[in-house]
Amino acid sequence: MNEKGLEAKLDAAVDPAEMGRWLQQLASEPNHVGSPHDKANADWMAAQFKAFGWDTKIETFYALYPTPISESLELVAGPGAPHKATLTEAPIPGDQPTYTKDALPAYVAYQGDGDVTAPVVYANYGMPEDYLALEKMGVSVKGKIVIARYGGGWRGLKPLLAQMHGAVGAIIYSDPKDDGYATDEVYPKGPQRPPQGFQRGSVADMPIYPGDPLTPGVGATKDAKRLDRKDAKVILKIPCLPIGYGDAQVLLAALDGPVAPANFRGSLPITYHVGGGEAAKIHLAVKSDWSLKPLYDVIATLKGSDEPNDWIVRGNHHDGWVMGASDPLSGMIAELAEAKAMGALVKSGWKPKRTIVYASWDGEEPGLLGSTEWAETHAEELKAKAVVYINSDGNGRGFFRAEGSHAFQHFVNEVSADVKDPETGVSVRDRARARLAVGMSEGGGGGGGNRGANQSPQAKAAANDPSKDIPLGPLGSGSDYSTFLQHLGLPSIDFGYGGEGESGGVYHSLYDDFQHHSRFVDPGFVYDATLARTVGRAVMRLADADLPVQRYADFADTVSTYLDEVKKLADTTRDEARTQARLLAGNAYALASDPTKTHVNPVALAQSPTYDFKPLEAAVAKLKTSAAAFDGALASKGAGLSKAQKVKLDNVVRPLDQSMLRPEGLPGRPWYMNMVYAPGRFTGYGAKTLPGVREAIEERRFDDARKYIGITAQALDAYAAELDKATAVVNGG
Amino acid sequence: MNEKGLEAKLDAAVDPAEMGRWLQQLASEPNHVGSPHDKANADWMAAQFKAFGWDTKIETFYALYPTPISESLELVAGPGAPHKATLTEAPIPGDQPTYTKDALPAYVAYQGDGDVTAPVVYANYGMPEDYLALEKMGVSVKGKIVIARYGGGWRGLKPLLAQMHGAVGAIIYSDPKDDGYATDEVYPKGPQRPPQGFQRGSVADMPIYPGDPLTPGVGATKDAKRLDRKDAKVILKIPCLPIGYGDAQVLLAALDGPVAPANFRGSLPITYHVGGGEAAKIHLAVKSDWSLKPLYDVIATLKGSDEPNDWIVRGNHHDGWVMGASDPLSGMIAELAEAKAMGALVKSGWKPKRTIVYASWDGEEPGLLGSTEWAETHAEELKAKAVVYINSDGNGRGFFRAEGSHAFQHFVNEVSADVKDPETGVSVRDRARARLAVGMSEGGGGGGGNRGANQSPQAKAAANDPSKDIPLGPLGSGSDYSTFLQHLGLPSIDFGYGGEGESGGVYHSLYDDFQHHSRFVDPGFVYDATLARTVGRAVMRLADADLPVQRYADFADTVSTYLDEVKKLADTTRDEARTQARLLAGNAYALASDPTKTHVNPVALAQSPTYDFKPLEAAVAKLKTSAAAFDGALASKGAGLSKAQKVKLDNVVRPLDQSMLRPEGLPGRPWYMNMVYAPGRFTGYGAKTLPGVREAIEERRFDDARKYIGITAQALDAYAAELDKATAVVNGG
Repeated sequence: MNEKGLEAKLDAAVDPAEMGRWLQQLASEPNHVGSPHDKANADWMAAQFKAFGWDTKIETFYALYPTPISESLELVAGPGAPHKATLTEAPIPGDQPTYTKDALPAYVAYQGDGDVTAPVVYANYGMPEDYLALEKMGVSVKGKIVIARYGGGWRGLKPLLAQMHGAVGAIIYSDPKDDGYATDEVYPKGPQRPPQGFQRGSVADMPIYPGDPLTPGVGATKDAKRLDRKDAKVILKIPCLPIGYGDAQVLLAALDGPVAPANFRGSLPITYHVGGGEAAKIHLAVKSDWSLKPLYDVIATLKGSDEPNDWIVRGNHHDGWVMGASDPLSGMIAELAEAKAMGALVKSGWKPKRTIVYASWDGEEPGLLGSTEWAETHAEELKAKAVVYINSDGNGRGFFRAEGSHAFQHFVNEVSADVKDPETGVSVRDRARARLAVGMSEGGGGGGGNRGANQSPQAKAAANDPSKDIPLGPLGSGSDYSTFLQHLGLPSIDFGYGGEGESGGVYHSLYDDFQHHSRFVDPGFVYDATLARTVGRAVMRLADADLPVQRYADFADTVSTYLDEVKKLADTTRDEARTQARLLAGNAYALASDPTKTHVNPVALAQSPTYDFKPLEAAVAKLKTSAAAFDGALASKGAGLSKAQKVKLDNVVRPLDQSMLRPEGLPGRPWYMNMVYAPGRFTGYGAKTLPGVREAIEERRFDDARKYIGITAQALDAYAAELDKATAVVNGG
Repeated sequence: MNEKGLEAKLDAAVDPAEMGRWLQQLASEPNHVGSPHDKANADWMAAQFKAFGWDTKIETFYALYPTPISESLELVAGPGAPHKATLTEAPIPGDQPTYTKDALPAYVAYQGDGDVTAPVVYANYGMPEDYLALEKMGVSVKGKIVIARYGGGWRGLKPLLAQMHGAVGAIIYSDPKDDGYATDEVYPKGPQRPPQGFQRGSVADMPIYPGDPLTPGVGATKDAKRLDRKDAKVILKIPCLPIGYGDAQVLLAALDGPVAPANFRGSLPITYHVGGGEAAKIHLAVKSDWSLKPLYDVIATLKGSDEPNDWIVRGNHHDGWVMGASDPLSGMIAELAEAKAMGALVKSGWKPKRTIVYASWDGEEPGLLGSTEWAETHAEELKAKAVVYINSDGNGRGFFRAEGSHAFQHFVNEVSADVKDPETGVSVRDRARARLAVGMSEGGGGGGGNRGANQSPQAKAAANDPSKDIPLGPLGSGSDYSTFLQHLGLPSIDFGYGGEGESGGVYHSLYDDFQHHSRFVDPGFVYDATLARTVGRAVMRLADADLPVQRYADFADTVSTYLDEVKKLADTTRDEARTQARLLAGNAYALASDPTKTHVNPVALAQSPTYDFKPLEAAVAKLKTSAAAFDGALASKGAGLSKAQKVKLDNVVRPLDQSMLRPEGLPGRPWYMNMVYAPGRFTGYGAKTLPGVREAIEERRFDDARKYIGITAQALDAYAAELDKATAVVNGG
């Protein structure tokens, strides 16, 4: 059977109704790490994979995973005091009856236990620029409890930045402007977060390293060497709790101090003040059980016929914060549907040429635990065998999106061009392109396309020209691809649908349940099924591909765009410091401020040097030349290669992206070794490309910037050299 | 005494404490057109001017000015019904006891009486782009009542656009996001609008013509020829009322239909829906007394010694919507303080060379009635004699700002460089420049400088270089300069302070009273006094100037910037239509929308032509040359001119700006004859420069655009020709 025929069978085999039944089963009870249902789900899925015909095992790891023993959050002084925050979520009448059994209370993983009573400062999103705004108002968080709203950057940065600024505790709440009634009716009337709903999550300092805090760089097997907890840099020192906006309104209304600037204001019916005074005080206490907990990774394999040592690895996690219906189980049921369909194809005679490895990760929510520990344990084997890592996570109704390694950009476009959008009947790529084009026409691409690539010249070109590939966004973090891409240097792709049926309003709350997913996020599970048809197609094509699917010119062009951005950033950063110096010299900040309010001048920025970008410019130029040579050679001669040449080519191309790794790693976080893709140190999930250079310029670490211009150029040079080897193979070498 | 000595006397004579007493007196009772205290204030001020030594009279006009007889606004069907809106404002305990006596209820002048019951649509700010958004959602306002929030554009456009789209009634409310608790604590705890406070105002279609609706173009004297009311195009046809957000919350919460897009959402604690369904209905009824009411303009004159037929005209209005403390009386007391100081200078021997005419206008609030009727009545004399019209209006603590005719830009900079800011001790110009510079460094100049000029190349230059003049913004409308500048072609300047003590939260409400102004807007009346020192200085310098103060290169350079903007607009408009055609052809709008929600494709835009801008380009080039020639000649030879030559020069320069007028007027609104400055047809207060061309391009009236390129070029050519005559005089002609 040809590939098209196989894919038609895949499409037909994916059964949304069955996926709905799986979802109901998997999401029937709380399934966070260490819960009874987490283990039960792993066992059940392992049995399913086996039944589908896959060689299946459960690999178990043991990670530090704190769970709350006691916690308390109370306004003890100020208007409205005393007021105790409700730290559990009430079930919705009519939703599943077993709801609250085993459910975790309000809680963020890897906060630092403590018991503090202190005045309060409202720090908006709690991001670096918010602290600059507070400093301007003369408001310090030192010795205080910071309350910040969700949004504007990754959750874990909020308590971390509070701690770095001297706060003794942190509270994170969901403001109805971003996540509540302002966006739509609240659950159960509508999909959005009700006042009592709060967002759990991890606050480990994952931009340093993800995975088990006690075993960075190695697998958390039973007998692994472990750090002392006090030496694990990724664990927060101050206590932190999340709350809903019902409680947050009482706390925020008690604050005095300056009126919050316009960009600090949410949609609560109050005047937002930044606080800082002694009038309002909060008591915050958290105590956790810091024992190791087991992680159950389900690993299922379909062995390849031709190249069994070439692995196509694909994963989705199975642990949720409570029931986890949308996040992560909507993606998990897609993976199961793919596995069932491929199993059936095998039974009817198909054999993938390469080995397919399907993983269902545990412990993603607290810190990518299951995927990281597995990848660290099997690092050498993966580096030798893995062709690509393909990921999915929570899914919903709407538009196709993909982010990932840019050599796979054309491949992703080909796959998505062949998947039909269930709502419109056009291909999911055509629909994504329409969204990109309309978003751009409405002002800059905010409305569509793949995350992080909407503003690029490539995106503009693709929006206007259906013959062009839609660019991939770069991967930052936030799901299980991180270790594969950023620690092992394996090419990775993350797939998903969304933008219409939104699970954001119940994200990491009790209300992310089967009813919510099936009513609001993906009625009929049609987009969960479409995800299975998309990823299944990608996996099967990669498993059976005769020649490399990569197009390295796409990677080279994208890196060239990143270099342009970084050079522009250097100019902007330099201009900023100059402008600021001029304004400080002229006393302009003070003159422009209201003398009846406290004003503090900004701290003077160091004047940036001009950087010598030549090494990087030369490396990018070489990369472009080498990429064009390889792509050209493969296109013209690939089909004529002998079996032996193809194997030889495969062995050069498969590990090629690992040349982006440098053993130094990134400044201050050596676990991250990829010199092109990383999660931002101070964005958390958001990607920073050419991160060694870009972040050094942003953070005015001038020596690091100079150093990483060189190191990054070395990585790109190594990449180009590997490409040249591959080209030589194609050319008969 | 030299001018500096005179100005020191002016500064010393301005007494903030006395101004505060005047304010308390003037704002002691409601003083809208037709109220007893309006007349009493006119009489009292006339007596003051006389006592100061000015030749004073009251000129009375008779304008159509409707006042409400009965009105009602009730939610009659839907959740929360029945709910009657409160159409009066409760006094604040401790504020003036006479408060509610004579106060107008919720009311907008020149709405159309009516009695309607209909479903409701929430139209955001009720601006043109909001109707496009509603159309996209498939929501029509035809036969419905539109509720729109204040902000985003001039009040009067909201019911007008509702009417143009087929609505049968309109409601305007103040959302707490823009004007209420979100911005600061509400009155009396803080300065902002309380839930029961509403904004009265005019909804006459003033972009067609301001002044008495029955006497466009002529003075509304007792015996003037008047239109039939039904023929007065500026009067609305549908009923309209303003309400506070306390009531608006009940009405908006009753709406169903699509969830409002993000930019429609205010800060009420509800999910904003756009409505349109049959479930919620409102009964809206207004009946007015449409009789003529008297207007009392106080006109006071200090006759010039050398050039009695050269007039420096300066005005501020005296009518408010209720007590009118900040708007307009804070500016009025500045004018009185100037008049008293100048009167004292005259008594001690000073004689202004030119005649100074001080006006206290009535009826500004309903539609610039008093200033327009006076200016239309005295049009010929003004065109013959007036050098400049200088205006002020409500004033507050903060930053200097000025807008006006650009030949006076350098003059305004010189004046503001010599006025000391009471809070910081630097000149008010240095402080304005600091604000401009900081605003620009924080992203685009939003934070400071003169309205409407913050983004210009001139503003960027001035922010970075203290030797450069801060540019003036252009005048649109919203206060009494309109008729002088836009109908008579007289150069005009509007002065004010603000940005710290804000009266916005009580704007046009009962709470704009003496207590509010003295607590929140300008404690100690120091900025009201600074306004007197600023405008008084400007008037005295203009009255005594030996040579023209104008610098025409500033005008020419500014017009050149406007032409650049218009050319760019033509490109943008063309690109928009092309992009839209491409997206429509590819069905992109439909594909990018959620199929579970109603989606309607946008109406296809006409494809814009390329315009031949050569006539305008040539006119601007000529204008620049002529302006440079005049400025150069005056600088080098001005001091050496004989008395006779100076008089001759004066007679050429004084009427020069009238060459910007063209008898055709603007398309569809011939009353507006200035081809450089106009209020926008669909911005209301906001200025549109080169309006004949700019608005035609924006509104895709391609023939008008072509025609007004020529007409505007003729106006600029005429201007340059007059400049050349003036240059010839300086050069000894």
